[in-house]
Amino acid sequence: MRIGLLGAGRIGRIHGANVAARANAELVAVADALPQAAETLAAETGARAASAEAILSDASIDAVLVCTPTDTHADLIEQAVQAGKAVFCEKPVDLDAARIRRCLATVERSGRPLMIGFNRRFDPNFAALEKRLRAGEAGEIEIVTVISRDPSPPPVDYVKRSGGLFRDMMIHDFDMARFLLGEEPVEVFALGSALVDKAIGEAGDVDTAAVVMKTASGRIAQISNSRRATYGYDQRIEVHGSKGMLRAGNIHETTVESATAAGFRADPVQNFFLERYAAAYRAELDAFLAACRGLAAPSPTGLDGLKAQLLADAATRSAQTGLPVRIETETAP
Amino acid sequence: MRIGLLGAGRIGRIHGANVAARANAELVAVADALPQAAETLAAETGARAASAEAILSDASIDAVLVCTPTDTHADLIEQAVQAGKAVFCEKPVDLDAARIRRCLATVERSGRPLMIGFNRRFDPNFAALEKRLRAGEAGEIEIVTVISRDPSPPPVDYVKRSGGLFRDMMIHDFDMARFLLGEEPVEVFALGSALVDKAIGEAGDVDTAAVVMKTASGRIAQISNSRRATYGYDQRIEVHGSKGMLRAGNIHETTVESATAAGFRADPVQNFFLERYAAAYRAELDAFLAACRGLAAPSPTGLDGLKAQLLADAATRSAQTGLPVRIETETAP
Amino acid sequence: MRIGLLGAGRIGRIHGANVAARANAELVAVADALPQAAETLAAETGARAASAEAILSDASIDAVLVCTPTDTHADLIEQAVQAGKAVFCEKPVDLDAARIRRCLATVERSGRPLMIGFNRRFDPNFAALEKRLRAGEAGEIEIVTVISRDPSPPPVDYVKRSGGLFRDMMIHDFDMARFLLGEEPVEVFALGSALVDKAIGEAGDVDTAAVVMKTASGRIAQISNSRRATYGYDQRIEVHGSKGMLRAGNIHETTVESATAAGFRADPVQNFFLERYAAAYRAELDAFLAACRGLAAPSPTGLDGLKAQLLADAATRSAQTGLPVRIETETAP
Amino acid sequence: MRIGLLGAGRIGRIHGANVAARANAELVAVADALPQAAETLAAETGARAASAEAILSDASIDAVLVCTPTDTHADLIEQAVQAGKAVFCEKPVDLDAARIRRCLATVERSGRPLMIGFNRRFDPNFAALEKRLRAGEAGEIEIVTVISRDPSPPPVDYVKRSGGLFRDMMIHDFDMARFLLGEEPVEVFALGSALVDKAIGEAGDVDTAAVVMKTASGRIAQISNSRRATYGYDQRIEVHGSKGMLRAGNIHETTVESATAAGFRADPVQNFFLERYAAAYRAELDAFLAACRGLAAPSPTGLDGLKAQLLADAATRSAQTGLPVRIETETAP
Repeated sequence: MRIGLLGAGRIGRIHGANVAARANAELVAVADALPQAAETLAAETGARAASAEAILSDASIDAVLVCTPTDTHADLIEQAVQAGKAVFCEKPVDLDAARIRRCLATVERSGRPLMIGFNRRFDPNFAALEKRLRAGEAGEIEIVTVISRDPSPPPVDYVKRSGGLFRDMMIHDFDMARFLLGEEPVEVFALGSALVDKAIGEAGDVDTAAVVMKTASGRIAQISNSRRATYGYDQRIEVHGSKGMLRAGNIHETTVESATAAGFRADPVQNFFLERYAAAYRAELDAFLAACRGLAAPSPTGLDGLKAQLLADAATRSAQTGLPVRIETETAP
Repeated sequence: MRIGLLGAGRIGRIHGANVAARANAELVAVADALPQAAETLAAETGARAASAEAILSDASIDAVLVCTPTDTHADLIEQAVQAGKAVFCEKPVDLDAARIRRCLATVERSGRPLMIGFNRRFDPNFAALEKRLRAGEAGEIEIVTVISRDPSPPPVDYVKRSGGLFRDMMIHDFDMARFLLGEEPVEVFALGSALVDKAIGEAGDVDTAAVVMKTASGRIAQISNSRRATYGYDQRIEVHGSKGMLRAGNIHETTVESATAAGFRADPVQNFFLERYAAAYRAELDAFLAACRGLAAPSPTGLDGLKAQLLADAATRSAQTGLPVRIETETAP
Repeated sequence: MRIGLLGAGRIGRIHGANVAARANAELVAVADALPQAAETLAAETGARAASAEAILSDASIDAVLVCTPTDTHADLIEQAVQAGKAVFCEKPVDLDAARIRRCLATVERSGRPLMIGFNRRFDPNFAALEKRLRAGEAGEIEIVTVISRDPSPPPVDYVKRSGGLFRDMMIHDFDMARFLLGEEPVEVFALGSALVDKAIGEAGDVDTAAVVMKTASGRIAQISNSRRATYGYDQRIEVHGSKGMLRAGNIHETTVESATAAGFRADPVQNFFLERYAAAYRAELDAFLAACRGLAAPSPTGLDGLKAQLLADAATRSAQTGLPVRIETETAP
Repeated sequence: MRIGLLGAGRIGRIHGANVAARANAELVAVADALPQAAETLAAETGARAASAEAILSDASIDAVLVCTPTDTHADLIEQAVQAGKAVFCEKPVDLDAARIRRCLATVERSGRPLMIGFNRRFDPNFAALEKRLRAGEAGEIEIVTVISRDPSPPPVDYVKRSGGLFRDMMIHDFDMARFLLGEEPVEVFALGSALVDKAIGEAGDVDTAAVVMKTASGRIAQISNSRRATYGYDQRIEVHGSKGMLRAGNIHETTVESATAAGFRADPVQNFFLERYAAAYRAELDAFLAACRGLAAPSPTGLDGLKAQLLADAATRSAQTGLPVRIETETAP
């Protein structure tokens, strides 16, 4: 597999290094709006720096990884599949559901595989939990709980162009809730506040939020988010069902524990998403390479991306109007 | 302190035995609609069996514990305070808020102390957490999470006259959320399903539910309930704030852990509320006796009981209408 | 059952209050070298203060609890069984094995039950572990590990007349090792140091010690002791066998956990042996009452007391000589 | 840094792959008694297959990693340092202490760095614990406890030429005890049994063992080993001191926990030493490369290897004679 990388920012560098470390794939070329970024990463990985156009028109490149800013995703996906390439794209496809639908229709017509970067599905802990859930270990699913707290809030400038907390941060949790529920939510109610940083509130967004959702059969999902957690990057899931509970917790920085007159103390949890999800990014890439080779259907699909986006849109509207929002079932474009 | 006990059912027997074990209080008399129940408990505790009327009109009795069925609470509270007695009453005062208000007005006029039996506030773990929260250990409170799952659902007959899950079961969690939030919720949204027992749904109630609430300053509370948990009586609280998190978990039956090829296994959590909250019931009684002696104001108060009831009413209405419900601030009657 | 209590010190008060709270036993009389101590406890428990002689010669008293200083135990046991009473005696019977043997022979001739106060066998956690061990859950036993650390060292005056750490403190762990091993140790090697308090070393004792033992079939036990643990009263057991491991850990003061930038913090473990083993003392008394009634053989027996003492003697000699010590099999007197 | 690898077995492949993944080092050549093994690894890592002689005489190679069978270590170390190369050698240097001393004298004369592969010192958890210990977090060290249990026993053929459990398996724990104690043990007592596999006993070795050691100032170390643990590769350390305790536990396969009527279940711990210590092997290589560059002294040194070997020899002798063994202080050759 010959791979081109579009975007050499933080997440692009992760994927680029992971491709370079694979025996069954080769990182051929790297593009970035900042030529220096592309060149640096290319040098580190044995690839060449190139323009996005050059990569898309290079017939020797089998697949591209789209790690550019969100507003370029849909266009690049369309160009890539039309050029016959398999595509891995970081979430989201677009902040606008209509634009996503058009993009997915183009992908559909191309017949090329598209996989969306919901990395948490590939975390070995969460993936093991989901597998055991599907095997029936918790019985009939009743309540799914997802807790996500970032170590610290992003700059307000980022917040302003992020689409808001529900689309920028909670979208991962919407995908995780769908992944675990085994059924589509049909109703969403959201509450949000700006408690961490007043400036986020002044920018029209929230930094603390809770969502409840219900599926057609009555399963319930709860999600809560905070843009700040002093003790690290807090990522927990819990599923309660007729036979019991399955949950997966955080990973502490080390296993060292101290005991003194002040009590027993364990380390903070891993603080940085690139560290916390390092194994997930590697497994995600493996899944994409397997899909490129036709060994497995691409998953999560573009439709998964659209459905998470629709939940994020609904939550955004719910928080704005103060009313619950119904979700229409979205079918493949 | 000479104490009379009204109601010798499951919870009455707990309180009766706790009074009998106290050096600073004496269980004088026990009443129950079933004379045999009163006599049995009286024999065990060195008290005498008597009618409720006889207890209320016995001037030598300083205080009564009301542990009778809910629909008798308000009347008995009124009679007792008018007879000059301090009153401890199991939750709720009544299923009807208007009736509660009238009862509290009568208590107010009597000048006698009334304390409501929200036992969980007295659990040593939850009480310690709340104290540390008030001392600022978590900083500004942002998200309160309460999880309550009963080991198994009650009979449908009980469910039918219980007032519904939000008033019968979640009312404890509404009180716990208020206890922890340090601020009144002003908005409530509730979702419920009958997933555990279809008959509960056919009786018009739910057995699985989630609530989100918001206070005026934007603090968020999440509550979830299930009427069944295979692994025991699941009672957890978690408070997230600007400085970090405080949480209190379950108590396993023993500290024994096994490790085999199947993994590491710990015991289920304590299964029965009378065992899980045994220490809480003792501490609750101590608090009531202290209030009777004027050493501390009674707490939780009748107003606390009313406010939890109003949240339960709002959640019930929200689940029925599918819409969020605003809570008006309730002030002392 | 009518019970007399000999000794109203710290441990006597525990047993006295536990008897007083039982419906199936009555605390009749309390003796102590300090009449005031006996009177105070008698007043609290509804018993009368009396001399030891009066209690031993009171034919209406069925059983006595011996909670006096160690050097009186053997004499009181002999007098009590000769007076026809069942006897519960705090460990040890005596610091001298020969004296213990003579005492046990007297008990044997009397036909009266004698039970020794190795309270830890009755801790619900340790008792559950032992039961599961006997049921084969860990398979064939290979390594038994016992860790005991006291919160703080006793006064040097106490140390001087205690018989030394191995007889005074580790004797509980020798009994626990025997309880868990299911086989008698035949070899003991001990190391000790005075690291906590120099004065303990100057008094000829140690405050930090480790012992290894081996049974005839090759099972290994490790014990370690310290006279000081800043984080509470540290009491842990672990058994490793062919099928896996069983262990029981400490009990934290509360279940509250905090998480901040400094990490995750749990409470110290319960600090005081009377709190840590409160349930054990109650269960121990139940076992004694059952033995008095002939419902079960008394256990731990006087022979158990002797065997633990012989291990403590052997460890003391090993630490003094620097050489391992063989244990001869002790059979019933 | 240009690196040659001697030995392409299990551990050699780990180090080879780790070198190949480093930007600051190059794996140049691989030798193995089985040419095919060398060629396969060379192909995977971009190195060339070569004889050991060719590697040792290649002046362009700066350093060698000795991963060959134990009986070749001392000779290869001597030849390599005499050829001017830095050397990393897997433990042990030799099973014979006199041979180790001669080898270390040769290394000393050469002036070249030698580092011994006690990988556990580089485990991020154990390394963090040791750093905090040295910073005084546990105060004065009193008791060091090391528990090591392998998932399953090696073949008896391996056992026969292994030097015995104390030299083959517990040597890692002797090194860990020295690493943590901060002082040399001066006395060793060992007990061992063949409980896991009778054939191991028939071959003259043990599979279950416990050691206690004491330093000159009275610090105590306890080590226990088993050749079998059904629940994974059990690797724990605990240090108790005047200010409290520091400990580091096992790593479970995932963070998933289930709760059912059978209790709460976590995964077995990581089963395979190459997985459990993957991060340790990487950090160990980094330390060696830093030592090669003169940025840090090599550590653990050859003398560390010798001292651990002397403890293993002493334990072997103690288990054979049934007597404790004194250790003479070993100084640099």
